[in-house]
Amino acid sequence: MNLYSQDFKTAATALCNAGRFIDSKGWIQATSGNFSARLADGTIAITTSGKHKGNLQVDDIMLIDADANSLDGKKPSAETGLHTSLYMRFPDVHAILHPHSINAILVSRLFGDEIVLEDYELLKALHGITTHETRITLPIVANDQNIPRLSRVVDDYLDTLTADCYGYIIAGHGLYTWGESIPEALRHLEALDYLFECELRLHGVRKP
Amino acid sequence: MNLYSQDFKTAATALCNAGRFIDSKGWIQATSGNFSARLADGTIAITTSGKHKGNLQVDDIMLIDADANSLDGKKPSAETGLHTSLYMRFPDVHAILHPHSINAILVSRLFGDEIVLEDYELLKALHGITTHETRITLPIVANDQNIPRLSRVVDDYLDTLTADCYGYIIAGHGLYTWGESIPEALRHLEALDYLFECELRLHGVRKP
Amino acid sequence: MNLYSQDFKTAATALCNAGRFIDSKGWIQATSGNFSARLADGTIAITTSGKHKGNLQVDDIMLIDADANSLDGKKPSAETGLHTSLYMRFPDVHAILHPHSINAILVSRLFGDEIVLEDYELLKALHGITTHETRITLPIVANDQNIPRLSRVVDDYLDTLTADCYGYIIAGHGLYTWGESIPEALRHLEALDYLFECELRLHGVRKP
Amino acid sequence: MNLYSQDFKTAATALCNAGRFIDSKGWIQATSGNFSARLADGTIAITTSGKHKGNLQVDDIMLIDADANSLDGKKPSAETGLHTSLYMRFPDVHAILHPHSINAILVSRLFGDEIVLEDYELLKALHGITTHETRITLPIVANDQNIPRLSRVVDDYLDTLTADCYGYIIAGHGLYTWGESIPEALRHLEALDYLFECELRLHGVRKP
Repeated sequence: MNLYSQDFKTAATALCNAGRFIDSKGWIQATSGNFSARLADGTIAITTSGKHKGNLQVDDIMLIDADANSLDGKKPSAETGLHTSLYMRFPDVHAILHPHSINAILVSRLFGDEIVLEDYELLKALHGITTHETRITLPIVANDQNIPRLSRVVDDYLDTLTADCYGYIIAGHGLYTWGESIPEALRHLEALDYLFECELRLHGVRKP
Repeated sequence: MNLYSQDFKTAATALCNAGRFIDSKGWIQATSGNFSARLADGTIAITTSGKHKGNLQVDDIMLIDADANSLDGKKPSAETGLHTSLYMRFPDVHAILHPHSINAILVSRLFGDEIVLEDYELLKALHGITTHETRITLPIVANDQNIPRLSRVVDDYLDTLTADCYGYIIAGHGLYTWGESIPEALRHLEALDYLFECELRLHGVRKP
Repeated sequence: MNLYSQDFKTAATALCNAGRFIDSKGWIQATSGNFSARLADGTIAITTSGKHKGNLQVDDIMLIDADANSLDGKKPSAETGLHTSLYMRFPDVHAILHPHSINAILVSRLFGDEIVLEDYELLKALHGITTHETRITLPIVANDQNIPRLSRVVDDYLDTLTADCYGYIIAGHGLYTWGESIPEALRHLEALDYLFECELRLHGVRKP
Repeated sequence: MNLYSQDFKTAATALCNAGRFIDSKGWIQATSGNFSARLADGTIAITTSGKHKGNLQVDDIMLIDADANSLDGKKPSAETGLHTSLYMRFPDVHAILHPHSINAILVSRLFGDEIVLEDYELLKALHGITTHETRITLPIVANDQNIPRLSRVVDDYLDTLTADCYGYIIAGHGLYTWGESIPEALRHLEALDYLFECELRLHGVRKP
């Protein structure tokens, strides 16, 4: 039996490359972060825990089913449930990225329950947005080592949304963002971190 | 018919290299930004939209005429009109660069209608300036998805100028800068972003 | 007599690579910093002084005994005694890293006798920590060119501890951190510098 | 006649490599900065003007005599006189580096006539300093396009010194630093910029 399909291998290689890109930006430290991609057959390729995500090999990616059960005997990360519940909610989402950038940490310490981003051209890097005259909101939820409970908090928040949502921040922990493909999720990550940095630097500078 | 002249190919390669340099500085994110060069025959090589400008291939550069009409069937970026109107105004300009650096964004949020730069040695990196005892002004215009209207706002401003102008900032969006060649435009970009950073950091530090 | 065991050579190569990683982060300048690893036989591989630690060769690593005596005729760094006293105190520690990152310097100037880190997910990168709901303290001691006296100050502080300690800061000088292996010490370094940066940036930004 | 000695070629190569290192730190922009080395016979290898100093070739280095006269027909930079007057004053100095780092610019805007650096371990990276309990002063002089006049202002200041001096800052322009060799001058540059950054960041952060 050949456990890993070509689809898996392609996705695993793309996740390794995404890790190198994300590390080059300084958004993952130590063994933090995890990344996943949903395959055509509904199974999910996801990083195992314990490795530096800037130096991933295909062997550091595992295969799980939609309920987060291991399909290849490897041990999934504790946060796997946050990935699978997002995939269940959003049928079009095929990639989820969770780095630990300092900008997301600082946003969570400074901005209360949510951060609002508006009037930036780079909002157009987000799926479906065609003008800077857009206002998006990212929720900030409390950190929790109990992942099913944390997942329910996120779910309850997402249930209340009427507009598109591009990510959420776990306070003191990091950003979750997603997209229809790995390149789109990377584009969302790059845009959101840029917008976080704009907001943070504006709060550190006095008006002339 | 060979659509692309050697002149085009040389310019296209230089634009790809400029993109890599600009990306290495962190000045373009996601698929943002666009770059162009005017050729000897008056046609213009310009980046197409939708690509990450840090990883451009010659095939990502298209050919347009002075009125922004596609000459090779590729689809021009929405902002192409901002390039062609600058080329019409300034006969000596042969390169235009438009990145999305955070410094330009922050300047636009903090400095109102214009930013004044003076008393910096690096002003001498700008065309024709020979002393730090120079005062230059860059306009900051409101962002607008209606590019012809935005272009007219820029034109109206540039009509009022009596001194040389090295660029303008679209608020919440990014810088447009130019030069007689791609190297000169890159030199202007590097100098202006440095001067923006000086001004921004001065406003974030208290006098001892 | 072959002075250097295979164990030494492996550790020396790992210390050189650690130096390159640490330099790539901007955490060592000029010839500052020093790194060591305890071998299975209780001897210690440690950087000699006077070299840029971002460009170490195996020949820049020397062998000392547990009392900091040179075993290969090379001259140990003045700070070697800070390494040997940590190895004596902590039998499980097999690697010590001492860079000069600016974040550690600024923490020492701003935070008095100690810095407290709590409620960060990245605390879990530290040995034995399994939840962000953890509070750790790093002491900040005054700088002193008298290394035996400085070592006693550190020892006196460490004697008072009841919880695990992951490092200490010498004011205006830099961080000492350690681990059961070089990779673990690097993980601790990467996590602690990230947490210092979070704390510092929070103090430079006004609440919205 | 072979104009260039082996000594020149070695120094020129070292200056090119120094330029690449300095550029990798972000301390030179556009075509700013200049670097020199005094050879054993008293002539001086120095960068010509107009090139990006991060991409120097040996051909971009020229040979001058102690009075700044060109010995190879190349055109010296306007600031060459600042190099030769330092070499006349300090017989042991064999290398001078002048980058344009933003930290030096900000120091000059914030700290008046001089900056005092004390109580930093990294002061020991400076020639002859053996303890952090040292206080050094770097003068800040007004920028001037009249280089002979600027050189006299610097000379008048240096005449008043009783202690070692490791560099000076030209306001809004950049740092001049030097050493007995190119590696020592690079060490001084790396240490001074680090200390400038410490001072600047301390002024941008509120005490907890």
